[in-house]
Amino acid sequence: MKIPEVIRIDVESSARHLAEMIGVFAELDLDIHALQSVAKCQKHTTWELTVELEPDQIDAVFAELEKKDFLTVLGTSDRVFKRHVGGKIRTVSTVSIESIEELRDVYTPGVARVCLAIRDDPEKAWHYTALRRTVAVVTNGTAILGLGDIGAVAGLPVMEGKAALFARLADISAVPILIEDHDADRIVDTVRAIAPSFGAIQLEDIRAPECFDIEERLIASVDRPVMHDDQHGTAVVALAALLSAAKAVDMNLTDAVVGQIGLGAAGIGICNLLSNYGVKQVVGSDLNADALARLESIGGHAAADLSDLMSRSDVVIATTGVKGLIKPEMVKQGQLILALSNPDPEIEPDVALANGACFAADGKSVNNVLGFPGLFKGALMAGAKKFTPKMLVAAAEAIHDKAPAGQLVPSALDRSVHDHVAERVSKVVDAGARLRPD
Amino acid sequence: MKIPEVIRIDVESSARHLAEMIGVFAELDLDIHALQSVAKCQKHTTWELTVELEPDQIDAVFAELEKKDFLTVLGTSDRVFKRHVGGKIRTVSTVSIESIEELRDVYTPGVARVCLAIRDDPEKAWHYTALRRTVAVVTNGTAILGLGDIGAVAGLPVMEGKAALFARLADISAVPILIEDHDADRIVDTVRAIAPSFGAIQLEDIRAPECFDIEERLIASVDRPVMHDDQHGTAVVALAALLSAAKAVDMNLTDAVVGQIGLGAAGIGICNLLSNYGVKQVVGSDLNADALARLESIGGHAAADLSDLMSRSDVVIATTGVKGLIKPEMVKQGQLILALSNPDPEIEPDVALANGACFAADGKSVNNVLGFPGLFKGALMAGAKKFTPKMLVAAAEAIHDKAPAGQLVPSALDRSVHDHVAERVSKVVDAGARLRPD
Repeated sequence: MKIPEVIRIDVESSARHLAEMIGVFAELDLDIHALQSVAKCQKHTTWELTVELEPDQIDAVFAELEKKDFLTVLGTSDRVFKRHVGGKIRTVSTVSIESIEELRDVYTPGVARVCLAIRDDPEKAWHYTALRRTVAVVTNGTAILGLGDIGAVAGLPVMEGKAALFARLADISAVPILIEDHDADRIVDTVRAIAPSFGAIQLEDIRAPECFDIEERLIASVDRPVMHDDQHGTAVVALAALLSAAKAVDMNLTDAVVGQIGLGAAGIGICNLLSNYGVKQVVGSDLNADALARLESIGGHAAADLSDLMSRSDVVIATTGVKGLIKPEMVKQGQLILALSNPDPEIEPDVALANGACFAADGKSVNNVLGFPGLFKGALMAGAKKFTPKMLVAAAEAIHDKAPAGQLVPSALDRSVHDHVAERVSKVVDAGARLRPD
Repeated sequence: MKIPEVIRIDVESSARHLAEMIGVFAELDLDIHALQSVAKCQKHTTWELTVELEPDQIDAVFAELEKKDFLTVLGTSDRVFKRHVGGKIRTVSTVSIESIEELRDVYTPGVARVCLAIRDDPEKAWHYTALRRTVAVVTNGTAILGLGDIGAVAGLPVMEGKAALFARLADISAVPILIEDHDADRIVDTVRAIAPSFGAIQLEDIRAPECFDIEERLIASVDRPVMHDDQHGTAVVALAALLSAAKAVDMNLTDAVVGQIGLGAAGIGICNLLSNYGVKQVVGSDLNADALARLESIGGHAAADLSDLMSRSDVVIATTGVKGLIKPEMVKQGQLILALSNPDPEIEPDVALANGACFAADGKSVNNVLGFPGLFKGALMAGAKKFTPKMLVAAAEAIHDKAPAGQLVPSALDRSVHDHVAERVSKVVDAGARLRPD
């Protein structure tokens, strides 16, 4: 998986030298994500240049740069690490505790009245505690980003990142819960045991196929909304993008044959959601026979192979992580293609278009941050017991609603998007599926 | 258990009527904790009067008040409940996420670099995440305040109260964890499973005797400081008060016979800490034979009964919850008595003094809020693996240091107290007992 490096380079001050330095990256076929001058003396400028690299590529980049006599590589900046020192979240008190009176109201002895009121009517916990905005973000660290099974503690920065985004975008209090265990039974037992502490539970970066079983058993046994974000959060954002793409080319999705390439957590989540949206024909491909069986079990159809899928589908969605998997000659005339793997898509959009696609996009803007904050906020607002397909579809439509003209999805940092998602999600919660009355 | 009620009463405006209204409470032998005029028209004043009552006493109070024709009882105020609406804590982001660059540093793809660094060196989690200030506050709801086994969810307002105090007083991020289970094995397994998510673990309001077993097994199996606050937090504050009392009467504690009345979680914690402080003779009394056996197992001696304990002890500490348990005639000449049960002590200090005690105090100021914030902060600052007796004694001495002249302990709302406790605790963590190097 590519990760960003901020390289610090001292260059003799001239546009010609700067251009030549950038040329080194062009030669290496690297994309420059940011370039900033951070210091300047009479003859030299220090630049900070952000590129995304495989971890083992950095030495080769340094070697190429050092061939130039007009520059000095100073090393890499630790900007990313600096932003992580001390972590990214904190618990704060929302009540004033400045006087003895306040202390005696919010702690002993006053708090006892609230405890007794909840003992007599447990529903009151939703009103007199923070349950209604509290979400556990649970991982066992087996599928952290594209890094694989690096362990739950190594995944903590991702969980804190999600919690920071929950806080910034939706005023949700998220709590990372790390379970260093591969055993589905123990993970289910543990989450079930602590579930009363939270209003909802987000499962995160748990690898397939265990993730399906773990999610299913928790949904069945916990009286709270439970969602594996890698499946459904990603699916919601993918469907939002697909709605925008279909609208752009005036395609009716429910009548289209949609082909899903890659049936991991994200792929299965997408197939599920497409069926629930009303797509009548979903075909899928994957190298793993169990994944194909799972597809059939949710009403999809297994394609014979990738070529078969490409030739049968009006719409193609790819989430394989395999750069360039879709060959130009596989593209069918008039096909709509979303090649969502980051940072490198299964086919570059311009190549797809040049080979007959009516619409093509990559996954650069398709970020699951667009989905989960509003999904959980909406579920919690409404007191939902579970996430339902209707809620996921409503979230996708809400994200699509907010996409600016010509774009697949809106900016994930726009709080109004998440408010809109929450609102739409909360409206489709059935009265019978509420944990408590309004 | 007494809980505060705020009674709203409309009284004809005159000092005479006010005095007569207060007289009703005097007749009922109730203490008025606060009295505030909240509205005034030409002839009437509305008063909010705070008293602490057994839950079933309120009707009798109303009946007595309503006999007076110059006042109208308006009901009880919901001030305590109002302060609890929406809960008392919240997770916030400590990083800015306003730009795409910031998003890509603190979430994907940038966060992957931090994850990989932690995978390669797990110690780095303490630097690049919030682990170092994060504490789980775990309860199963079996001994919430003096209310008994009301369930974990009904105890959530107490856990949020502790978390709010952790945040306000020590910048610690505490997370309530509710486990609705009476089975010690399952509680231990659950806490052990989620322990990597937290820098330390506070056990809270778990009833005796299970609390001893649960704490012991978690300390043995979790590589984090674990502490049952009802035992050790309370003991630390009691020892701090005792140090101040002994100083006031110039008594040498290590040579004194200390008698502990009541060997529940708090009593056993106090006996343990007294021994660790250097008190050579600790005797205890309790109606429960198992509690006496536990006392002997930690090096104390069982008194034959309460009278035996009173006649043998130079210092008496009582934590039984039984009002008036110590009869005036039991007091020995020159005895130091701390009758700590709240709100009603085992013997009123003035009664004890009148019957020969050299020093006597009740537990009104002895609040465990004085202990836990600094204890956990100090342990986390130092990277301690466990709480040790040395750390608990250092905390007690630190609290005692800050007690103003003539008082047993300082104000719990004074942040400098908690800073001082943290500092003193962190200094006595042995290098070998650190989870990680400084």
